[in-house]
Amino acid sequence: MNDDQDPSQRRTSIGAQRNPASQEAILQAATEILAERGPGSFSIEAVAKRAKAGKPTIYRWWPNKAALLLDAYHRQKNPHLHGDTGDLQRDLTRFLMELLAFWRRGGSGAIFRSVIAEAQTDQAACEALAAYLAERRKHLGSQIRAAQAREDVRPGVNPELAAEMLSGFAWIRLLTNRLEISEEEAAEAVKIILDGIRARR
Amino acid sequence: MNDDQDPSQRRTSIGAQRNPASQEAILQAATEILAERGPGSFSIEAVAKRAKAGKPTIYRWWPNKAALLLDAYHRQKNPHLHGDTGDLQRDLTRFLMELLAFWRRGGSGAIFRSVIAEAQTDQAACEALAAYLAERRKHLGSQIRAAQAREDVRPGVNPELAAEMLSGFAWIRLLTNRLEISEEEAAEAVKIILDGIRARR
Repeated sequence: MNDDQDPSQRRTSIGAQRNPASQEAILQAATEILAERGPGSFSIEAVAKRAKAGKPTIYRWWPNKAALLLDAYHRQKNPHLHGDTGDLQRDLTRFLMELLAFWRRGGSGAIFRSVIAEAQTDQAACEALAAYLAERRKHLGSQIRAAQAREDVRPGVNPELAAEMLSGFAWIRLLTNRLEISEEEAAEAVKIILDGIRARR
Repeated sequence: MNDDQDPSQRRTSIGAQRNPASQEAILQAATEILAERGPGSFSIEAVAKRAKAGKPTIYRWWPNKAALLLDAYHRQKNPHLHGDTGDLQRDLTRFLMELLAFWRRGGSGAIFRSVIAEAQTDQAACEALAAYLAERRKHLGSQIRAAQAREDVRPGVNPELAAEMLSGFAWIRLLTNRLEISEEEAAEAVKIILDGIRARR
């Protein structure tokens, strides 16, 4: 359940017939521009220029700026964010802590915040964000589904719904600038999803 | 656990010595302007003019535009959003469904989305949003705490953390423009928080 596949393999759902070489050059250029100039100055034009690619080539693979920005942002993530040790409480706690730590580091949180902000007024950005979330939900959900396969999770549970619950908690912390979290609090949040809050009678 | 107290009683945490009459006039003016012109044209100046109040008077009670906007937004909410029938699964499911329905109706979702977007670049707006969320978390948390008092919720659970988990799920649906939710899905989301997803052995 690692997240360290080649991005050209991982994101094939968005562009059907991407040329891996050009895609890699474009993504590399996008990542560099994002790191150097930040999300406010990120543009398809600047990426095209640096990657020596035509703008239509970029638009063939990414429907809009936000989709490309999200792909470049995703490349910065820790490839071992989704470790699967077989202990779901431990794995999800680590996931939550590392995601918030990633957002605290080097502008990544600001990048993701800027995309969410843009998505509130720009319909295309909102669709790109929803598609990105759908992919992350599927990915995190597959980790929960694996636990379901080994009968650690109840059979009736929708793994993607549980995954979205955890993402929602991470997002609300990011959006209110509360990214500091102790291991105890992260573990407590995960425990709510795993064990619930209801008293057993 | 109803939410229908006088707003001047409810929000005393932000302004210490509000004059209820002037506060009411200002909030009323703010609510009208928000409804008529939307969040993009909402300004302290416009509210001051309509309420026949000085801008310093407004700033004495609300630290910034976002705080006043959030107060005005909150007044539009269903006063019975937090019904407490003693059945937590049913109450939280209804809360989640009514919150998403409120956001779908008449611009309320767009207003809250605009505040979240502004909070991603404006520090004062972010503080106002965090303060608003803290209050909502406390309010929803007190409903969960009441269930804890009647031993429906485990004693070790942090009610506000569980409340924030539910809010995070609502926010992530709003921010990706996925406000349609069936009663089944809302109930399933609440059940994750109440019962967890882990298989009992």
